[in-house]
Amino acid sequence: MAELALWAPQAWIAGAWQPQVLLEAGADGRWQRITPHTPPPAQAERLAGPVLPGLVDAHSHAFQRAFVGLAERRDGEHDDFWSWRDRMYGVALRITPEQLRAVAAHLYTELLAGGYTQVCEFHYLQHQSDGQPYADPAAMAWALADAAANAGIGLTLLPAVYERAGFAAAELRPDQRRFRAGVAEVLALQRRVRAAGRPLLDCGAALHSLRAARPEALRALAAASEGPLHIHVAEQQAEVGDCLAATGCRPIEWLLQNAALDARWQLVHATHTVTAEIDGVAASGAGVVLCPGTEANLGDGLPDLRGWLAAGVPLSLGSDSQVTRGWSEELRWLEYAQRLQLQQRNVAAAPGRQGATAARLFDRVLTGGAAAAGFSRWGLQAGARADLLVVDAQEPALIGLPPSHGLDGLVFAAPARPFARVLVAGRWRDTAHAGRAQAHRAALQALWEPAPGPHEALTVPTG
Amino acid sequence: MAELALWAPQAWIAGAWQPQVLLEAGADGRWQRITPHTPPPAQAERLAGPVLPGLVDAHSHAFQRAFVGLAERRDGEHDDFWSWRDRMYGVALRITPEQLRAVAAHLYTELLAGGYTQVCEFHYLQHQSDGQPYADPAAMAWALADAAANAGIGLTLLPAVYERAGFAAAELRPDQRRFRAGVAEVLALQRRVRAAGRPLLDCGAALHSLRAARPEALRALAAASEGPLHIHVAEQQAEVGDCLAATGCRPIEWLLQNAALDARWQLVHATHTVTAEIDGVAASGAGVVLCPGTEANLGDGLPDLRGWLAAGVPLSLGSDSQVTRGWSEELRWLEYAQRLQLQQRNVAAAPGRQGATAARLFDRVLTGGAAAAGFSRWGLQAGARADLLVVDAQEPALIGLPPSHGLDGLVFAAPARPFARVLVAGRWRDTAHAGRAQAHRAALQALWEPAPGPHEALTVPTG
Repeated sequence: MAELALWAPQAWIAGAWQPQVLLEAGADGRWQRITPHTPPPAQAERLAGPVLPGLVDAHSHAFQRAFVGLAERRDGEHDDFWSWRDRMYGVALRITPEQLRAVAAHLYTELLAGGYTQVCEFHYLQHQSDGQPYADPAAMAWALADAAANAGIGLTLLPAVYERAGFAAAELRPDQRRFRAGVAEVLALQRRVRAAGRPLLDCGAALHSLRAARPEALRALAAASEGPLHIHVAEQQAEVGDCLAATGCRPIEWLLQNAALDARWQLVHATHTVTAEIDGVAASGAGVVLCPGTEANLGDGLPDLRGWLAAGVPLSLGSDSQVTRGWSEELRWLEYAQRLQLQQRNVAAAPGRQGATAARLFDRVLTGGAAAAGFSRWGLQAGARADLLVVDAQEPALIGLPPSHGLDGLVFAAPARPFARVLVAGRWRDTAHAGRAQAHRAALQALWEPAPGPHEALTVPTG
Repeated sequence: MAELALWAPQAWIAGAWQPQVLLEAGADGRWQRITPHTPPPAQAERLAGPVLPGLVDAHSHAFQRAFVGLAERRDGEHDDFWSWRDRMYGVALRITPEQLRAVAAHLYTELLAGGYTQVCEFHYLQHQSDGQPYADPAAMAWALADAAANAGIGLTLLPAVYERAGFAAAELRPDQRRFRAGVAEVLALQRRVRAAGRPLLDCGAALHSLRAARPEALRALAAASEGPLHIHVAEQQAEVGDCLAATGCRPIEWLLQNAALDARWQLVHATHTVTAEIDGVAASGAGVVLCPGTEANLGDGLPDLRGWLAAGVPLSLGSDSQVTRGWSEELRWLEYAQRLQLQQRNVAAAPGRQGATAARLFDRVLTGGAAAAGFSRWGLQAGARADLLVVDAQEPALIGLPPSHGLDGLVFAAPARPFARVLVAGRWRDTAHAGRAQAHRAALQALWEPAPGPHEALTVPTG
């Protein structure tokens, strides 16, 4: 007997739209049966629009939501990723667990509204502002877990090893003091989070980057950690150059030679690559997490999208610095940035008859995202968690589109708020929660007091 | 005595936020007085959020709204602007005045919601499907005017001279037969539209492009036409090459040498330029209309944004093929595409202390858009039309931003629906009109009957 029975006029199942779909979930919050070509039964709730599986947001730093819109002013002759990072550290030094809980709960509500039902938190903001551990060393982790539970999104926590300021550094910079975590601390946090047995909460691990974690730490973590293993890699040209200078290898090349990459591994960004690296990653089974909005905001550069697609590498999307918080805009501009560079259209479409760009990208990040969050089953299939998105049939951007082109419209018609309802683990979630918005507002006002003046970029102490 | 008195906590006036602003409009639909630093008078309506002037959408082909989301599939080995154009011609051949009226009314409602209060229609879809004039040769123009009046947006109609299929062609292609218009027809239509005296309706003129209009036509139109003069130019590399082959000049170079460019002229796209062309345009007073969403969708390439900004050229935004319909996303990705290419941040910001990227772009397109639509006064100032946008203070993306950073947030925090209310000529407009959406749906269903199958790109007869 199904706990929940829903009926949709159309559902995206195994890469195609199926008509008249009955979706039944059990009390365990998982799909029991999904049956297309079924007239609506009397006991099923009829949904008003087509349904899609939720996607995984595979890379999030929730605390960075606190300064979205506050770093978009040039305050010197040169402005790039690294000057942005200095400002970001200021936020990282300032935010409290209570503020993080409020900011993350609002963010996670926005992510649900944007079509994500699971978020991977690449978590390196561990300690108090002075660098000392909190009384409960997991205080910041629990703030994130509380926020996810409040919003009703699934959370894959990824505590990160963060040991040094660069390849040649023995130590962290003073403004990185809240990030310090070795392999033992990360594994201890992973054990605690897993033992807590909270619903919709899982825990893998991360290494911040090759520059911030020693090779021995990488090998020790990979040997002992459970679940997915994420690492920032090859986001910036300077990082590639530093790695070459320190190790004689490009960063992905180094991982391929030294890290025994496999399907647990997720390479975040992987913007600057050569063909041999793409081939190597494909052979390893590792996935790549693209963050199109953030990579654009930070001027990282363009990934080799066609290369990753052609090589069959699992891909996923990350909201990262939170400047974009929905997959419609991420996929649209992932593709558009390629078109601008290559001066072609439908770059990501497979050649041949079924060359639908949106569908190819969506299906790739659907399965790639599941892998990035450590799910063996995901999407609209029996045994997977009962998540789904109901497309808003009244969204002005989508009105009148032929049903066969719903996914094309979701990505390329620039819908403002594409989803009317979002289900996670068999429960409808509130994607417009006034209380969470209010708590976010209060947290930001406290963080930015005194507020920056009309001509000021955000400035925060970083020392 | 003011007909309308509004009070806002904050308003964007002459390039800065002013607090506590009283805005008074007369019965003529124009601002009479705008007074910052005023406590809210009892008789004024208190607005719930900050207010901004509306922007001009300086380049629209309304009929192209009918196939947004339907051309995003690769159906051959090569897919680019030109294969897209063949599909677009199919739509152009099929749409009726009644369908255009419905599609354009929905589009214009979306444009209002996206922060535009005036739209320039670059209008070349003149005749019946068989190429014969309608009984009223202005039937398609009136469809656009009716749609704009229905939505409540201001309209600058720009009927376009369209004479030939290319530099070397004497005639149009068969699938361009609805576009035929010489200088006499354009001037006749301009006189009729101006004589109609409809509110919020004005008329300039256009030349489709250098390849589609003869030099004599260009000179004759410029000599006799009233109002702004728009032309597509240098959107595609192939177009630059064709112009070079036919004339020995690049297209903007040709205009600078032969067209007596002045402030009436608007160069649409101007994507592919050399420095001397930018300098020449700057000296001429002509403006440039950028269409970031469409230029990305079509793989046109990147404009020299820094070059145009530094030269002081008036810039504006166009929704063009309608794949994006709000200025927040247009400005965000105009800047982001530059960051991806240059691997820097805040590319459009002026160097120096006030280097706010969003404000610089917004102010440039505010004044540039007014010029593109032929307004001598525009924005929040006495004598200008009483248009404004009220920012939605409950928009999740913007909650908690310091008031000084409202414009940064509107552009870079990726708000879904930024504006709670839109005023045009002293009247609030309905930006979520169910009846217009329903008529649009019916028009699209009629246009796409039979609907494309699940694996099909949109195919339409073009012969």
